[in-house]
Amino acid sequence: MRDVSIVGVGRTPVGEHWQMGLRQLALAAIQAALHDAGLERVDALIVANALGGNLSGQNHLGALIADVAGLAGVEALRVEAADASGGLALRQGYLMVASGAAETVLVVGVEKATDRQGSERGVALSTVLDADYEAGQGATPAAMAALLMRRYMYEFGVELAQFEPFSINAHANGALNPFAMYRNRLREGAFGKAPMVAPPVSLFDGAPEGDGAAALVLTSTERASDMVPVPVRVRGSGAASDTLALHNRADMLFLRAANLAAGRAYAQAEIGPQDVDLAELHDSYTVLTALQLEAVGFAERGRGWELAVQGMIARDGRLPISTFGGLKARGNPLGATGVYQAAEVALQLRGEAGDNQVPGVRLGLALNLGGLGATAVAHVLERVE
Amino acid sequence: MRDVSIVGVGRTPVGEHWQMGLRQLALAAIQAALHDAGLERVDALIVANALGGNLSGQNHLGALIADVAGLAGVEALRVEAADASGGLALRQGYLMVASGAAETVLVVGVEKATDRQGSERGVALSTVLDADYEAGQGATPAAMAALLMRRYMYEFGVELAQFEPFSINAHANGALNPFAMYRNRLREGAFGKAPMVAPPVSLFDGAPEGDGAAALVLTSTERASDMVPVPVRVRGSGAASDTLALHNRADMLFLRAANLAAGRAYAQAEIGPQDVDLAELHDSYTVLTALQLEAVGFAERGRGWELAVQGMIARDGRLPISTFGGLKARGNPLGATGVYQAAEVALQLRGEAGDNQVPGVRLGLALNLGGLGATAVAHVLERVE
Repeated sequence: MRDVSIVGVGRTPVGEHWQMGLRQLALAAIQAALHDAGLERVDALIVANALGGNLSGQNHLGALIADVAGLAGVEALRVEAADASGGLALRQGYLMVASGAAETVLVVGVEKATDRQGSERGVALSTVLDADYEAGQGATPAAMAALLMRRYMYEFGVELAQFEPFSINAHANGALNPFAMYRNRLREGAFGKAPMVAPPVSLFDGAPEGDGAAALVLTSTERASDMVPVPVRVRGSGAASDTLALHNRADMLFLRAANLAAGRAYAQAEIGPQDVDLAELHDSYTVLTALQLEAVGFAERGRGWELAVQGMIARDGRLPISTFGGLKARGNPLGATGVYQAAEVALQLRGEAGDNQVPGVRLGLALNLGGLGATAVAHVLERVE
Repeated sequence: MRDVSIVGVGRTPVGEHWQMGLRQLALAAIQAALHDAGLERVDALIVANALGGNLSGQNHLGALIADVAGLAGVEALRVEAADASGGLALRQGYLMVASGAAETVLVVGVEKATDRQGSERGVALSTVLDADYEAGQGATPAAMAALLMRRYMYEFGVELAQFEPFSINAHANGALNPFAMYRNRLREGAFGKAPMVAPPVSLFDGAPEGDGAAALVLTSTERASDMVPVPVRVRGSGAASDTLALHNRADMLFLRAANLAAGRAYAQAEIGPQDVDLAELHDSYTVLTALQLEAVGFAERGRGWELAVQGMIARDGRLPISTFGGLKARGNPLGATGVYQAAEVALQLRGEAGDNQVPGVRLGLALNLGGLGATAVAHVLERVE
């Protein structure tokens, strides 16, 4: 397999883009990424999108976005795995370049999540769960996260307030990011008083779905060095699955897919978690953040929350996470989220993270989950000097 | 890139499977394909599905189907490109093995199209068109095919009756296939009297959507020879895109994506159309079959229909097509269709096509389209002696 690098990054702000549809959002991110890479054409396009068929009446997004971007003729496909669509699209693009099937691949994640409101949006969001055994019985992603959180608190003797530092950290970083959906800081103590979505999951615990698009341009590392000042190498890439239904898991407090995906990415990169300088984790719910820290080697089981309480996840801590606000403050544009995460790690490694910059970073991890962790995709990215 | 072969094939009948959901259909095809390959595990799973989110309330099918098949933990994703999902999933699986990222990959196409009726199904089917400029204005796939057919008849001076032999051939072959949705033969003259769907497209012209699943197991050709008596080699693989909206095409009577995809597959295989012994084309509408014959080098422009009229597409003709009934008689299980096509070509090359066998075939083409040809995927398959 050939070595692969990221040579272009583009993003739109995440928010409620009522003036823009799927195609306009995707185009904005694509144009930014192509401009960043200094390219006008690519060999292939991979579109990550979770709910276009449900929320926008638009499937078949590969060919559509290729046309809108002036790329009609190129090979184009859509990858879908709930909010892990973006990570998997990046992985498929990586494999296309690694295999030699393409010289340059454009990966774009796009989601238009806010055109539908209320139960219509709720029903669509729940299609990422098991339709027969979860969603069909009335479960929602927030309700399943609540079950997980309650169990975590019970098993490990953790109080609700001990999840608060995750959200405070995300909002502190989001406040500095012009592309974030929420730029307000959270006051200490506000977390416990926030309106409940599905107790104990509150508005300040779960990430808001938003509209947005992010894009990456990939090419061989060999070629990358001639194209841009600081290529970002994909040093490790791994993906794995777990059951959709929480009740089918032998141990629902262990994110097996995240553990396997990160293990595969670490093995390829020939590193361990101790080598990672920063991590964009999938903080759609604070309990998932704690569980990810445990599953991928940053904390012992039942102690992921301590990293937040001890301040280790801040930008000046030992393991900065959610450095641009994470899903919680930057927003969760579902199918686009995994591309945002990788884009943010790439910008950090390039030293172009602006007010969100973590100094002196060389190796970053992007960990993208689908639903309650049924899909996991891990990428280890490295600054190429 | 490594050489890749198909070592396992599985299918369910196509039809109205009201007793089976998405997961049961997929499982049946997967079990058959794994049994055929003599395998119990694979390294990765790719699910092709077009409308699960719209018609079954189920997205996130990669992880779900992996779990149902007892494969939880493997890397799993869903690929979507309307009724070209299957061909693109095969191509992604091919690239995973070719790149060395996986030793064995399972590709399964699955669709549950008949649980919704009437306008609910119609709205879902139209999500493969351009939502803003076609579906949003009331257009349906059949209506767009009707525009294309009318234009073809006008430009090339062709009568409706001259499309009839395509449907007669498909049904003649479908009548012999126990997996076909419609096993009736069409009488000569019936085509012109069939109830209209969108004139001139009639019930005997357009293919019926159906439920079904098909699966393929891929591995390196090197390993394949030790596993099964007759591996089927993927000698060429190509994909391309065109505009979703017909009105955006410079020449709507030229299937540019099909031309590009087949050209890429031929180039990789180092063959030309004259070397192909049989072809499974995407006969969702007869006019698309004529246009594909023209786009991929089997006929001059405006003369694709002549191959049917002259009997060349029959199983004893120069270029047999729809040898198991095609989309028209076997049925069009949307996201699964491209996998059925490749499975059928593979069975022909293995000499295991039963009553549908075309004698002495060595090279076959599978050409899968999405919508009105906005996505095209071509595979050249070869019998390995």
